[in-house]
Amino acid sequence: MHTTVGIIGGGPAGLLLARLLYNAGIDSVVLERKDRAYVEQRQRAGILEQATVDVLRSAGAGARLDAEGMPHDGIELRFDGRAHRVDFPSLTGGRRVWVYAQTEVVKDLIALQLTDGGPLLFEAEVHAVEGADTEQPVIRYTHEGREQTLTCDYVVGCDGFHGVARNAVPDGVRTTYERTYPYSWLGILADAPPVYDELIYAHSERGFALASMRSPSVSRLYLQVPNGTDPADWSDERIWDELDARFALTANPGWRLKRGPVTAKSVLPMRSHVTEPMRYGRLFLAGDAAHIVPPTGAKGLNLAATDVIVLARAFAQLKETGSTELLDAYSDTCLRRVWRAEHFSYFMTTTLHADPEQSPFETRLQLSQLDRVATSPHAAAELAENYTGLSLDANS
Amino acid sequence: MHTTVGIIGGGPAGLLLARLLYNAGIDSVVLERKDRAYVEQRQRAGILEQATVDVLRSAGAGARLDAEGMPHDGIELRFDGRAHRVDFPSLTGGRRVWVYAQTEVVKDLIALQLTDGGPLLFEAEVHAVEGADTEQPVIRYTHEGREQTLTCDYVVGCDGFHGVARNAVPDGVRTTYERTYPYSWLGILADAPPVYDELIYAHSERGFALASMRSPSVSRLYLQVPNGTDPADWSDERIWDELDARFALTANPGWRLKRGPVTAKSVLPMRSHVTEPMRYGRLFLAGDAAHIVPPTGAKGLNLAATDVIVLARAFAQLKETGSTELLDAYSDTCLRRVWRAEHFSYFMTTTLHADPEQSPFETRLQLSQLDRVATSPHAAAELAENYTGLSLDANS
Repeated sequence: MHTTVGIIGGGPAGLLLARLLYNAGIDSVVLERKDRAYVEQRQRAGILEQATVDVLRSAGAGARLDAEGMPHDGIELRFDGRAHRVDFPSLTGGRRVWVYAQTEVVKDLIALQLTDGGPLLFEAEVHAVEGADTEQPVIRYTHEGREQTLTCDYVVGCDGFHGVARNAVPDGVRTTYERTYPYSWLGILADAPPVYDELIYAHSERGFALASMRSPSVSRLYLQVPNGTDPADWSDERIWDELDARFALTANPGWRLKRGPVTAKSVLPMRSHVTEPMRYGRLFLAGDAAHIVPPTGAKGLNLAATDVIVLARAFAQLKETGSTELLDAYSDTCLRRVWRAEHFSYFMTTTLHADPEQSPFETRLQLSQLDRVATSPHAAAELAENYTGLSLDANS
Repeated sequence: MHTTVGIIGGGPAGLLLARLLYNAGIDSVVLERKDRAYVEQRQRAGILEQATVDVLRSAGAGARLDAEGMPHDGIELRFDGRAHRVDFPSLTGGRRVWVYAQTEVVKDLIALQLTDGGPLLFEAEVHAVEGADTEQPVIRYTHEGREQTLTCDYVVGCDGFHGVARNAVPDGVRTTYERTYPYSWLGILADAPPVYDELIYAHSERGFALASMRSPSVSRLYLQVPNGTDPADWSDERIWDELDARFALTANPGWRLKRGPVTAKSVLPMRSHVTEPMRYGRLFLAGDAAHIVPPTGAKGLNLAATDVIVLARAFAQLKETGSTELLDAYSDTCLRRVWRAEHFSYFMTTTLHADPEQSPFETRLQLSQLDRVATSPHAAAELAENYTGLSLDANS
């Protein structure tokens, strides 16, 4: 089999890229290791930036998002026993974010692709990318019990941190930057209505907590826990009690989350990772294959979307004009945004979490920073601009 | 001897407080451990915020400052081989800073005080503050070879981190917050004109460097060096070569500092410290006795000035109305600004220095932060507002 763009990975990055290429009249094949049901149930991020919503709409994948997604015009910060709301539209010239789970984005894109797109193969396990530095790279994979070969003009690795694509870039070519944070998140899904109609990010000496949501009846809640935590050690009651303690408000001591059955419970590591460059010959890396952010800044899915937007534009330019100018600029174009997102995610993470090694001095610095966001329009705007996402075409 | 306000320490905080009290008709005595010549030659900070300049002027100590001080409307950041100027007035609604050495401020205030102020005793070594929690605290000191006693209505400790005042607050009452940075500054004075008419803050993988000035013909230059560095290990030539390397510009490889005779050379530790509360009974702490900042944010002298402005207003209120409301609020009023300055100093320090333990990931975060300041008006304004100093009467 031959295709113009071989896409490894059927997560949001690979699926969105396939859709954008289809709309540009460029053929592609998507190879996904897992089956469709697995992919459609994977719990991941849930916050979409304006630019991500815009591209999903223009790609034809915006109908259910518009019907079911929940636009959010701000977040609440809790610290020092008090609450402060950061209003996005007034601080950013009208930008906002949407709560719409990644898993729903994936369902929408799969449905579209299977209706009229190019090949999307599930349970297609890629073993190797060969000849990335030649004119015609080859993807070797197993599908329906047989070893198969996909020859491509270009290969895009959207197969995540542990995928084959990143490791197909020779060691001497790629540089890896990383950081592991000394804490994890215990995340739960609960059949309980969100207690507040926006997300609540809480700084507490007991550790960070985040109240998010998946729908008007499903809450998504997170607690900072030590690395190596076993979710089984956290009973539902212990989780709710700890959440209430971390979200506590001095002026409203009766404030409580609404409790309900916990339907999922898992521990997420917190880490940062960047691979440079994001290209080797005719192999391009996009999304988690090139970079990981801790979830505090809600940037992972949005960075993946940006990568494939940039890439789709570059392939369209190549098709229309024969020029590889945008393709050649791909890595540099993306990395500047990637590092901005890495920095913002680091800022949100280290400002809100209690590092087990943290001194009382450092706790006071966190509180001073949060107080600054609550009192300085510039500090608030800096958070709001980064959170809602930079315009794709801005230099900054 | 008895006085209303006994002031321990004849640095800028103690001298300015004495002046402000004199102007409000409140008597004070200043006890300074060193002799006048020593105090007038001590090399310290050199950047005055607008609010500090305003108070010196209104206190009658602004004449030489206005004649010889150099107003600066910005700073230059150098990173990644390029230069970016941060313009203060356009980002802050007209605020700027002045270059005028602390040692000159001290000379001006001493001259004023000796002309028409209350007692200012040099070589008066304070041994103890007793009865801080009584109605009439006592300062015990040695002067002209004799043990003496100063009874006071109030005592203000302006005697720095190692002074007697801070240690007169019982251990169980005060909480100490601190951080020692894993690097120091090697500072030199050189008889060489500044190469640029504003300060240059340089981020470099070789370490931080700062080009400042004392006058149009005297440069003040700093290099990040390891803790424990002996200035004798740094020849003049090595210092100039290293400065040139850290300030190097990719687009202007011929750029060099102007060299001249090095007239002073010393190593400065970098540390943060806050003592809370800044009051115990009738003993108040001001300036370095209560808080230390690393010099990167140029906040030390300015925080000291703010403390004594707040204190002088409080003593004036007490004299005029008998109310201790402002005195009682002193610690809280000051600490909010102190923590803002501690945070900003930490931000400037950790963004610009190369921590010996720093990972390449963290270096990239520094560069992304600096790039953000260079491209985002909000990020630039956040730096400029903090650098030029918050308005004294602002809540933020």
